[in-house]
Amino acid sequence: MSEKKITLAHGNGGKLTHETISSIFVPAFNNPELRELADAACVSVGGQRIAFTTDSHVISPIFFPGGDIGKLAVAGTVNDLAVMGARPMYLSCGLIIEEGFGVDDLRKIVQSMSVTAKEAGVHIVTGDTKVVEKGAADGIFINTSGIGLLSEKVPKGMKSIQVGDAVILSGSLGDHGVAIYSKRENLLLKNSLKSDCAIILPLVEKAMGVCDSIRIMRDPTRGGLATTLNEFVSEQAFGIEIVEENIPVKEAVMAVCEMLGFDPLYMANEGKVVMVVPAESAEEVVSALKSLPLGRDAAFIGHISGEFPGKVCLKTLVSGERMIDMLVNDPFPRIC
Amino acid sequence: MSEKKITLAHGNGGKLTHETISSIFVPAFNNPELRELADAACVSVGGQRIAFTTDSHVISPIFFPGGDIGKLAVAGTVNDLAVMGARPMYLSCGLIIEEGFGVDDLRKIVQSMSVTAKEAGVHIVTGDTKVVEKGAADGIFINTSGIGLLSEKVPKGMKSIQVGDAVILSGSLGDHGVAIYSKRENLLLKNSLKSDCAIILPLVEKAMGVCDSIRIMRDPTRGGLATTLNEFVSEQAFGIEIVEENIPVKEAVMAVCEMLGFDPLYMANEGKVVMVVPAESAEEVVSALKSLPLGRDAAFIGHISGEFPGKVCLKTLVSGERMIDMLVNDPFPRIC
Repeated sequence: MSEKKITLAHGNGGKLTHETISSIFVPAFNNPELRELADAACVSVGGQRIAFTTDSHVISPIFFPGGDIGKLAVAGTVNDLAVMGARPMYLSCGLIIEEGFGVDDLRKIVQSMSVTAKEAGVHIVTGDTKVVEKGAADGIFINTSGIGLLSEKVPKGMKSIQVGDAVILSGSLGDHGVAIYSKRENLLLKNSLKSDCAIILPLVEKAMGVCDSIRIMRDPTRGGLATTLNEFVSEQAFGIEIVEENIPVKEAVMAVCEMLGFDPLYMANEGKVVMVVPAESAEEVVSALKSLPLGRDAAFIGHISGEFPGKVCLKTLVSGERMIDMLVNDPFPRIC
Repeated sequence: MSEKKITLAHGNGGKLTHETISSIFVPAFNNPELRELADAACVSVGGQRIAFTTDSHVISPIFFPGGDIGKLAVAGTVNDLAVMGARPMYLSCGLIIEEGFGVDDLRKIVQSMSVTAKEAGVHIVTGDTKVVEKGAADGIFINTSGIGLLSEKVPKGMKSIQVGDAVILSGSLGDHGVAIYSKRENLLLKNSLKSDCAIILPLVEKAMGVCDSIRIMRDPTRGGLATTLNEFVSEQAFGIEIVEENIPVKEAVMAVCEMLGFDPLYMANEGKVVMVVPAESAEEVVSALKSLPLGRDAAFIGHISGEFPGKVCLKTLVSGERMIDMLVNDPFPRIC
């Protein structure tokens, strides 16, 4: 890493984030679990296989259409466990609060964490609260770490992906990113957009119920779908081809993106899952997802291709082809 | 809780922190593991008993005599697992970094985490990095959550404490709090004081090796020994009597405390353990602790007494008696 100072782009979940991880963290903390760079580490404790993950949430604003930082913190960590094929069980809650923060707001956030945890069937069993002076933090930051139980039947991960496999997305792209951006910038939208912030565990369970050879699942948060798909293939002998017209994007999201020059492929999602499955299971998995309200816009959006090793290629609406890199410079700070 | 705004005292680890926990978090997250209010939650995952804990570190300054925020973050979480009688195994690392933070400082901190993790025999297997705009955080905050393996032989906790039991402290009080305070305020001390920041796992293992009926162990961090001892007895039918002249405090620490009106009983420690053991094991446990460099000042400092239900009583050097409450108003912000 050549930079001397940390920039917002180091935290955008894209290329610089990956560089920081691979040049600073992976060499220092050197262990096989971390090197997997999955959404959660899979470890053994006394012979029991468990998934373990952590996420700090610094979203601004803390209350937004469709959720708040509390809901996001619980759903985000539950989702990271779910996409590993784990059954989420226990969460921790580490708060950093700025002096002067409203106790009523804290109560609302904690209540929201409690409701979301109940919905996900997890227990928040341990916590820590730090208070820093006025000006030393912006309101409230929440870390949630989580533990999930791994079964025998979990996705085998990147190495199991094969040419011809189908890429499936559980719903429309960019709702969270655009909702946060609009709220932050006080954009007045006729159809006020909501974040898609949600527990995706039911989607994952439904898909695993009809397909026991899902290769990999991820929730495309910071960095968006484009970054997640690049992670799937960046060191592989094959690539991914996705078809623009198959990718669900809400009209209002598209409108904001066009107005501001954003690309929905890079916008954050907080209630979606992208999965790679064998081609022959694709139809069944899409149907299974569509049977749930959260998955009604699920779609088969592309496939693993031998043509573009290590790359993600978008077939555009005008029949062109465009290579899609990881998120690079756009910082989108504090989106989660 | 009657306050409308969060104050620094809500985060000092003392009375207001306890009030916040019991009035906001415990009712909302309602579950037996959290209600224990131990340093880590003891949970079952697929039949395996594990300890799970979290701590956010917001210390200022981030580099201090005897350590840095990285060493503190790893040692703090390892110690929270160790005092539950668990074998610390895996840690997570959640960073919140202010835009403009030096990459060299980040490397130093990560290196320090790596060295401390090796010393403790734990692996940092999962992580998350968020970057916030300049001014939205102060430098760097680190959350570490941790998982440990529980054996059959763990301390039974507060309910197992009995009148007559001995209270043992592994070394001198207040080194961390006074070192941080002095560095922050640029106090020039002749014998420059160092934080006691250290992994206490060897002390805990040594004690458990000679005594299989340790009632409870804690590392007295924020709020100091006074707050920890109050936690032991606050809802019990008995109290604790400690003897001032038996409590090890370094001369330099005492000097700073006297100069500034602090009480070492309330100063934070980051490499000490206090334990309650059956009276007949006290001598053997103290000898065992003393056999390690980290425990050379270990001392039998008092006992569980039927006389002061729910209270902690200090027999002072001048043969007086003084009731010692939890830390109340002093904020001591960002001490860990």
